[in-house]
Parts: sequence; structure tokens; C-alpha cells
Amino acid sequence: MNQIFVIGIGPGGVDQLTVQATRALASVDVFFVLDKGDATADLVAVRSEMIRLYAGRHRVVDIPEVPRDRQPADYAAAVLTWHDARAAVYETALAQLAPGEVGAFLVWGDPALYDSTLRILDRLPVEITVIPGVTSVAALTAAHRIVLHRIGESVHITTGRRLLAEWGPELNDVVVMLDSHLTCLQIAESGLDIYWGAYLGTADEALLSGSLAEVGAELAILRAELKQRKGWIMDTYLIRRR
Amino acid sequence: MNQIFVIGIGPGGVDQLTVQATRALASVDVFFVLDKGDATADLVAVRSEMIRLYAGRHRVVDIPEVPRDRQPADYAAAVLTWHDARAAVYETALAQLAPGEVGAFLVWGDPALYDSTLRILDRLPVEITVIPGVTSVAALTAAHRIVLHRIGESVHITTGRRLLAEWGPELNDVVVMLDSHLTCLQIAESGLDIYWGAYLGTADEALLSGSLAEVGAELAILRAELKQRKGWIMDTYLIRRR
Ligand SMILES: C[S@@+](CC[C@H](N)C(=O)[O-])C[C@H]1O[C@@H](n2cnc3c(N)ncnc32)[C@H](O)[C@@H]1O
Ligand SMILES: C[S@@+](CC[C@H](N)C(=O)[O-])C[C@H]1O[C@@H](n2cnc3c(N)ncnc32)[C@H](O)[C@@H]1O
Repeated sequence: MNQIFVIGIGPGGVDQLTVQATRALASVDVFFVLDKGDATADLVAVRSEMIRLYAGRHRVVDIPEVPRDRQPADYAAAVLTWHDARAAVYETALAQLAPGEVGAFLVWGDPALYDSTLRILDRLPVEITVIPGVTSVAALTAAHRIVLHRIGESVHITTGRRLLAEWGPELNDVVVMLDSHLTCLQIAESGLDIYWGAYLGTADEALLSGSLAEVGAELAILRAELKQRKGWIMDTYLIRRR
Repeated sequence: MNQIFVIGIGPGGVDQLTVQATRALASVDVFFVLDKGDATADLVAVRSEMIRLYAGRHRVVDIPEVPRDRQPADYAAAVLTWHDARAAVYETALAQLAPGEVGAFLVWGDPALYDSTLRILDRLPVEITVIPGVTSVAALTAAHRIVLHRIGESVHITTGRRLLAEWGPELNDVVVMLDSHLTCLQIAESGLDIYWGAYLGTADEALLSGSLAEVGAELAILRAELKQRKGWIMDTYLIRRR
């Protein structure tokens, strides 16, 4: 079985690689790069720069992205179908490894947080080594210089899709990821603070924080403008009950 | 105001520093090191090694640990009192910075996750820059090669102290930190899996996973043995409802 590194590369820039990740990059024979289309060309560029800086002799194998149903009736089933299709594509790509060669996937942030690379590789006959990375959550809190939780309290990490169903009196600090609609603006409750960040860890980093009631409208405009200007946006935020 | 770096150093070893962190280390004039007593001499040694490898000309200022009431009647109030006392000690230490000098605190894992350095520095007249780090949660999932959440689901991060009160049908994936009693063994529910790790990212890394009902007793023994052998233990685990 070939060895495959799944390397967390941090949320934004080459400097967020760990020393362990740079060492792993140096030992890789084949980098598998997912082509997610034009919108994320910048993200592909960051990966290329990391490979240029730290890899040794290597090949790059592109993996075409499998189209996905974005508005499915059954979300979990649609994701599983999508993973099946991707597993087939990954398997074809992995066949390009010669015996004994080491492959690698570079994963944005940390591979354990809202990323499916591990789920897909799990179905394939490879030996996986995971290198942890800095998450976009850590980049968010670092940029705002805040602690994630209150003293002795807990933290909840969820998606835009689940936020409204999960929000309730027992959750005081909720991080929201994968939210293309600023779903927090639909929470009808006063006394909430938001700490928001986009393109965290990159030169385009944008931050906003304050009372959700006061900055919400401004944030919606800012987010739309940034998305329009750059063609894509990746943002994360923490909602905190005061 | 002096500039102070609060640097996340990752959960275990020098190789978990990010490139950004190694650069920051090189620019520091004064490292403030908390002396937490013998039990964590190993942790101090990791920090010293990082400073040796990456820092330039610098001084080290030790900050004595302030004793803490570990069984207080009012937990949050006791923590606040403790933070007050620590702020006074930090202030004395920070006075050793000459104008224009850069200071730094090296924080285990990421500074936003169950660490009070930022809360204490927030009360003092310094300009803070936070460098995000790899968390022990990312080290746990990397070691087990798992994804933190299930497809489209959320994740909850809590403490041993809160686990039993928070555990309930709406939480399926819960990470527990700061738990010196393996509190999960008190959850009376079948169909739970555990992914446990101690000394993650270090040479002593220990892992165990499986059905909580099946491996719970073994885990209790293993944890007690490890703690006895080394004199201290730091462990984290994920509880997952099947
Ligand atoms: C598919 S998930 C991957 C998360 C990644 N594995 C991590 O550890 O951060 C993508 C989501 O992560 C968040 N994200 C990733 N990178 C980000 C960045 N640089 N700035 C803000 N949010 C980011 C956004 O919420 C985005 O919708
Ligand atoms: C005071 S908190 C600090 C957490 C740290 N800021 C982080 O990001 O991981 C200490 C707790 O973190 C967890 N922890 C930290 N380092 C660890 C390691 N190397 N292995 C296992 N657990 C660790 C344990 O749950 C421990 O009780």
C-alpha cells in the first residue's frame, strides 16, 4: 500500500504551515491537487507556492472536481453519493503512484474540520498519515485576539445550515462555518456579539466585530462587496451571548 | 506600549510550530515563562527547546505561578480571583521590558482554547499580537485519522467539569478537555465510541479507541498507569454517538 500524507496547511498562507508539514512536503513524490474551478484559483495558488517552497522532486496530479447537487432534498444522502463519485476519481488518480511512492493531499486548515478528504481516502487501499494544521477558527480568534469560550464554558462549532435549528439557551458561544448567507442575521435575539472574519490569514483578511444588532446590516453589505470584488469569499464567525 | 506576542506553539513538539511562529520567536527580546512546578517540567523543556532553536538574542523572565483553589464553591468567581492575582504578577514581570522591546508568551496548543493568557494580558497596557497554533483537538483527530464531525453535523467542545450536565440527545460528537477523571465513564448510555489520546504530538503519545462500553475499564487503568509513570498526564477525547 502506498503511503499518503493528508497535510493540514492552515487557513491562509504559506507561513501557517507547521515545521512538521514542511518536512512532510519535502518527502512527497506525488501531490494530488483538486481542481475546484476558477473561483478558488487563489487557493490553488497558495498550495502551489507551498509546493514550490518546500517540496523536493515531485509530480503533480490534478483531480477533477465532481459536480455536486447544492440544493438536494436529502443533504446527507446527496453528500454520500458525491463521496462515492469522488472516491472513484481519487482511485484513478492514486493509480499513478508507483510502488513505494509517497502521495499527498494538501487540506485547507485542519483535515478534521469540515473536510471530506479523509472520509474519501478511508475507502481506498492506502496507508494514511495525517498532519494537523491551524484551523480557520484559530485564525479567527487570533485575528480578534479573543478566547473562544468563556471561563470554564464550552464551545459549539456548527454550519450555517444548522445554526437556526441548534441555537438555544444552552449554547453561549457558537462558531459558524460554511455559511454563505450570514444566517446569524436571522436570529431574533438581542444581546449577541459577533466576531467575524473573511480570508483569514491572507493579505485580504477582513474583520468586523460588535453587537450583532448594531453591525449586522453593515456586515451584510461588507460581505456582499468583498464577495463581488474577489469573486468568492470564505468567512467564519463566532456568535456570543453577552 | 510594548508589543507582546502570544504564540500558539501546538500541542506537543517543536515541529508543530508554524513558520509564522518561528519567525515571531526570532523577533522576541523577552520570553515570559510561567513556572508551573515540577509536574510540567517536560512542558517547560519543550518551550526552552523552541527558544533555543528559533530565538535570537533574548532574555527569559520567569513568572511564578499563583496558587489556585482547585475545589472552590464558586468556580467562576475563584477563577476571576485567580486571574486578578496573576494579572498583578504579570504586570510586575512586564515591567522588565525596556521601551520598544518585544515580549512573548508561548502558549500550549492554540491561545484561544482553554487558556487564560489572553484574558490576563487584556487587563494590562500592552499591544497584543496572537499567532494561532495547532490545537490538541487537531492532534487528537490527526492521530486517530478521523474527521471531528459527521457529514454536515456540528461539534461541541467542553470540559470534564461540564460534560455530564451538557451531554444530551442533541449532541452527537463531543470533545472533552481538562478532564482529570475520565468523566465519560459516568455516562450511562450504550452505543458510544471514544477516541482518546494523551501526550499527543510527543514521543509519549498514547492512543485508545473503540466502543466506550468495551474499552472504558481498560482506558481507566491505562490512564492511571501513564499518570503514575510520568507524574502528570494531559489527555483529550472525542465521544461519538453511533
Ligand atoms: C470546507 S470548510 C474547511 C475548514 C478547514 N478544514 C479548517 O480547518 O478551517 C470551509 C469553511 O472554513 C472556513 N474557512 C476556511 N478558511 C477560511 C479563511 N481563510 N477565512 C475565513 N474562513 C475560512 C469558512 O467557514 C469556510 O466556509
Ligand atoms: C489548559 S488546556 C490548553 C489547551 C490548548 N490551548 C490547546 O489548544 O490544545 C489543557 C488541556 O488541553 C488538552 N491537551 C493539551 N495538550 C495536550 C496533549 N499534548 N495531549 C492531549 N491533550 C492535550 C488536555 O485536555 C488538557 O487538559
